[in-house]
Amino acid sequence: MLANEEEHARLVETARGDRPADLFVRGGTIANVYSGEFYEGNVAVTAGRIAYVGEGERAAGPDTEIIDAKGMIVAPGYIEAHFHPWVLYNPVSLVEGVLPLGTTTIVADNLFFFMQMGHEGFAKMAGDLRDLPLQYLWMVRLTSQATFPGEEEMFALDNVEPLLRRDDVLGTAEVTRWPALAAGDPALISSIRKAKSLGKIVDGHTGGASESRLQPVAAAGIDADHEAITKEEVLNRLRLGIWTMLRNSSLRPDLPELLRSITENGISTQRLIMTTDGPSPEFLAEHGLVDGMLRVAVDNGVVPMQALQMVTINPATLFRIDGQVGGIGIGRRADLLLLPDLKSFRPETVISRGRVVAERGELRVPLPDVEWDSYGSRPHFDPDLDLGDPALYPQERSQAEVPVIHLRSAVITERKDARVRSENGLVVPDGDALHAALIDREGAWISRAFVSGFAPKLDGLASTYNTTTHLLVLGKRPKSIARAAWRVRELEGGIVVVEGDKVTFETALPVAGMMSGLPFAEVVELNRRLSRAVAKAGYEHHDILYTLLFLTCDFLPALRLTPLGLLDVKSSETLAAAERL
Amino acid sequence: MLANEEEHARLVETARGDRPADLFVRGGTIANVYSGEFYEGNVAVTAGRIAYVGEGERAAGPDTEIIDAKGMIVAPGYIEAHFHPWVLYNPVSLVEGVLPLGTTTIVADNLFFFMQMGHEGFAKMAGDLRDLPLQYLWMVRLTSQATFPGEEEMFALDNVEPLLRRDDVLGTAEVTRWPALAAGDPALISSIRKAKSLGKIVDGHTGGASESRLQPVAAAGIDADHEAITKEEVLNRLRLGIWTMLRNSSLRPDLPELLRSITENGISTQRLIMTTDGPSPEFLAEHGLVDGMLRVAVDNGVVPMQALQMVTINPATLFRIDGQVGGIGIGRRADLLLLPDLKSFRPETVISRGRVVAERGELRVPLPDVEWDSYGSRPHFDPDLDLGDPALYPQERSQAEVPVIHLRSAVITERKDARVRSENGLVVPDGDALHAALIDREGAWISRAFVSGFAPKLDGLASTYNTTTHLLVLGKRPKSIARAAWRVRELEGGIVVVEGDKVTFETALPVAGMMSGLPFAEVVELNRRLSRAVAKAGYEHHDILYTLLFLTCDFLPALRLTPLGLLDVKSSETLAAAERL
Repeated sequence: MLANEEEHARLVETARGDRPADLFVRGGTIANVYSGEFYEGNVAVTAGRIAYVGEGERAAGPDTEIIDAKGMIVAPGYIEAHFHPWVLYNPVSLVEGVLPLGTTTIVADNLFFFMQMGHEGFAKMAGDLRDLPLQYLWMVRLTSQATFPGEEEMFALDNVEPLLRRDDVLGTAEVTRWPALAAGDPALISSIRKAKSLGKIVDGHTGGASESRLQPVAAAGIDADHEAITKEEVLNRLRLGIWTMLRNSSLRPDLPELLRSITENGISTQRLIMTTDGPSPEFLAEHGLVDGMLRVAVDNGVVPMQALQMVTINPATLFRIDGQVGGIGIGRRADLLLLPDLKSFRPETVISRGRVVAERGELRVPLPDVEWDSYGSRPHFDPDLDLGDPALYPQERSQAEVPVIHLRSAVITERKDARVRSENGLVVPDGDALHAALIDREGAWISRAFVSGFAPKLDGLASTYNTTTHLLVLGKRPKSIARAAWRVRELEGGIVVVEGDKVTFETALPVAGMMSGLPFAEVVELNRRLSRAVAKAGYEHHDILYTLLFLTCDFLPALRLTPLGLLDVKSSETLAAAERL
Repeated sequence: MLANEEEHARLVETARGDRPADLFVRGGTIANVYSGEFYEGNVAVTAGRIAYVGEGERAAGPDTEIIDAKGMIVAPGYIEAHFHPWVLYNPVSLVEGVLPLGTTTIVADNLFFFMQMGHEGFAKMAGDLRDLPLQYLWMVRLTSQATFPGEEEMFALDNVEPLLRRDDVLGTAEVTRWPALAAGDPALISSIRKAKSLGKIVDGHTGGASESRLQPVAAAGIDADHEAITKEEVLNRLRLGIWTMLRNSSLRPDLPELLRSITENGISTQRLIMTTDGPSPEFLAEHGLVDGMLRVAVDNGVVPMQALQMVTINPATLFRIDGQVGGIGIGRRADLLLLPDLKSFRPETVISRGRVVAERGELRVPLPDVEWDSYGSRPHFDPDLDLGDPALYPQERSQAEVPVIHLRSAVITERKDARVRSENGLVVPDGDALHAALIDREGAWISRAFVSGFAPKLDGLASTYNTTTHLLVLGKRPKSIARAAWRVRELEGGIVVVEGDKVTFETALPVAGMMSGLPFAEVVELNRRLSRAVAKAGYEHHDILYTLLFLTCDFLPALRLTPLGLLDVKSSETLAAAERL
């Protein structure tokens, strides 16, 4: 991430006034996030980095590209500090959606890339993505989001450490299974200690942790967290010394509530950051990314400079990259935004590494063609796995009652026990419960359960979009489920909705079973069509992608369908074990 | 600097409530520098680290030491972020002086230790000093403060890099010869790049640099600077992205002026730090260390919380040790102060690593006996060097005029040319100029010059206390000079003042020729006696130690007496070369 030696030398020359700049941004109002001031000045850029900031004109030579910023605010590019770049969009298509909105750096989770591609495939991909006009920096996982056989070996320190040593890897990603940290899990603590000894940051995830439960998680070593959902939870984290990220995601658009910690309690903002956490494409298209959070912050009474600091210098400081990004300072990447005002925060012009990459919301540079398959990103299905048999999916039970996963909200479930009856030779619980199963793509196991509160009229849905990237199926009609499952396998990963015998929605997700290869605008349209398709089947919640994602996870209450079987998260009890196929 | 594995595990247990704390500080008002709040709470300590902060009582077990903090502010230990621990005091005696005042961490310059002991001797010393109740962290030099033959080899990256890899070395120390950075000196840039690639911080020194000269120094890669002497110079640095330290040293007590950047311009304080830069023992005894700056800040209208942040979390964040020190956060070293108020900032009780180390201004723990000689710290003199010959010192000149180093202030000189006459067989310039010489302790060379504006009635003074640690002599009477020089050599380093033939002041400085082995209180007394002795000889300035220190340096205007000869700093011209002895 440092400039190379030759670029460094050129930078010093321009700074000294001995070499004309490549680019000169003249006469704007500089948003200086270091001093907290706005003042008029010029910015000179050499070798993609800022070589001069001030009133001088000397760096503007005859061959220097000049940008007139008169009447504009010149702000540093926005940083998204905690992001999951796989919500149908992939890391490349995402650039189309968010770079024109001013986000020039994304600190991204490596989870599904690592799980699908292994550490070498991920490293190759991360290397190739360095050519993008938006900078990806990475956080690497120490655990999955759904315990599975073989997990320990996959996430062994031997596999993670080579990644931790990369300069584009900033630390370890959230451990969603945070009670393991509170319990002092030796393997996790050991990985955290390794990361810290390498100067890396440890990101946390403490969803639902009470103040007293936060203390041991902090003691385990987390540096940052983004799971506060109330003003009080912001204080609980910040006070322990945890960098606290205020979240505005599609799943949890809590920012207005969280900002009350600033506007009402008047706390210091220097260790606060705003994050979108990976919103759905639909949400992103409607609310923007970091730009959207800035609008919300200022609308809710935060001073514009403090809002800007929370998405520029603050995250850069947390991640120890403040010498590289996060402000219009000498030697930093020339990631600059020309903003017409401090209300919309929508850039007129986006400059990345000293190059104009977007204007008036439109991308102005081509993105590289990434050969996703070359990283081993395509999900594999065992050829002998017979997904076309409707008898595969329903549960066979002899009990009079079964535990049902009941969705209380888009992602929070509760256990509801339901009496079962037999109908057309199938075991069916009372109420609106659907058959649900999670099937190993390699054909080794299947976990079965019932799910209610999802979409009572859904005939069949199949999706590799879930925390396991195995095949999750749901529906009231086994034949429709089988149709959907069969089609997803034909697509080699994806989401398919079936009504009766007809596919009403489908998308291939060839990148790790989570991401589309289509352009961003089409991905947004896909998301909207999916939302309509499930709405028609009675889906009552607000974020179908996160509902699918987390049905299989092992860190949210209460019941989950996981590779180990039907899991009671709190007790860690498997209520119905996965069966061999 | 991380807790070890076993301590880490214990910490998590106490945080979880499963193990009583070693120490429990009950009922104080916590100064939370993360959130910027003051509120009542308890702090539990295990294995020398903070395991719990909050309202809970659970960590207080039957064997837990309880401290009642009712009515007290519980603040994090102060951090001195830029310090030269060799101003007569040594790193151990300094602890006696400043730990009771609340400074629990010092980021220290390694210069004279490294020059005297080499990298292995320094490393051994730094290792031993880890046992002190005050934490020393180090910045390592890339150049000396006075060019000398053999310097390049001494500071070659091969010698510096092993130090940069230490976890108690936080970065590279100030390059006082900053024009070399502005010029893009390849060896310096290369060392800076190495330091950054190891995750280390690069400290700057830009005394007198204009706004336009700061730009290339910033481009070279400095992260921090402490040389602003006006409000405008604070802005010039901060705006370029440089962490800016506001200095209040004995030499430059500029803090009230510098604070105007906060109180008048209302700038963000999150990248501001306060430092004393290594004051004289006299100044320290009178004004305190970090505690003194806090008093000045609050007296000058800075909000107490912001003042505290500038000496705790801000420096910790700059140096990327905010997970270890700088706030009352979980997992941090339990360096805690019990303050009666937010005006005096004088702690009633000082806790270091969970142990009470000082109360009501008195140290409560013994300090280790450090065998300075075991690091090779004693300055060596060539046995054949004949210092007793008065003829050695005066300059022999055939010119009618000579350039004179004229002290305009304690450390700033200007060139004054004076006509010479012959008196008692000696060449003497008009005016109050003294004979001055710098003599290689190994007897290889001597640099001679005249100095005026120092102390017109001074008969003879000799001192290894100067940036070269060779023998600096000054005086109007060669016999007195010879007496002083001879005595300093007998002491194996030190400062000696002679009136006529009588020694009126002397102190041995056996540690690198700069530091006394005496206790802090005696060192303060020494400093006072030295000040009186030179005042009697007509010394008009305010800081004799810094006058001596910098007469031989190569980075302050205008003329200096260096190992290369009489140097014009700005032009780098040697006006009179050193001669072979």
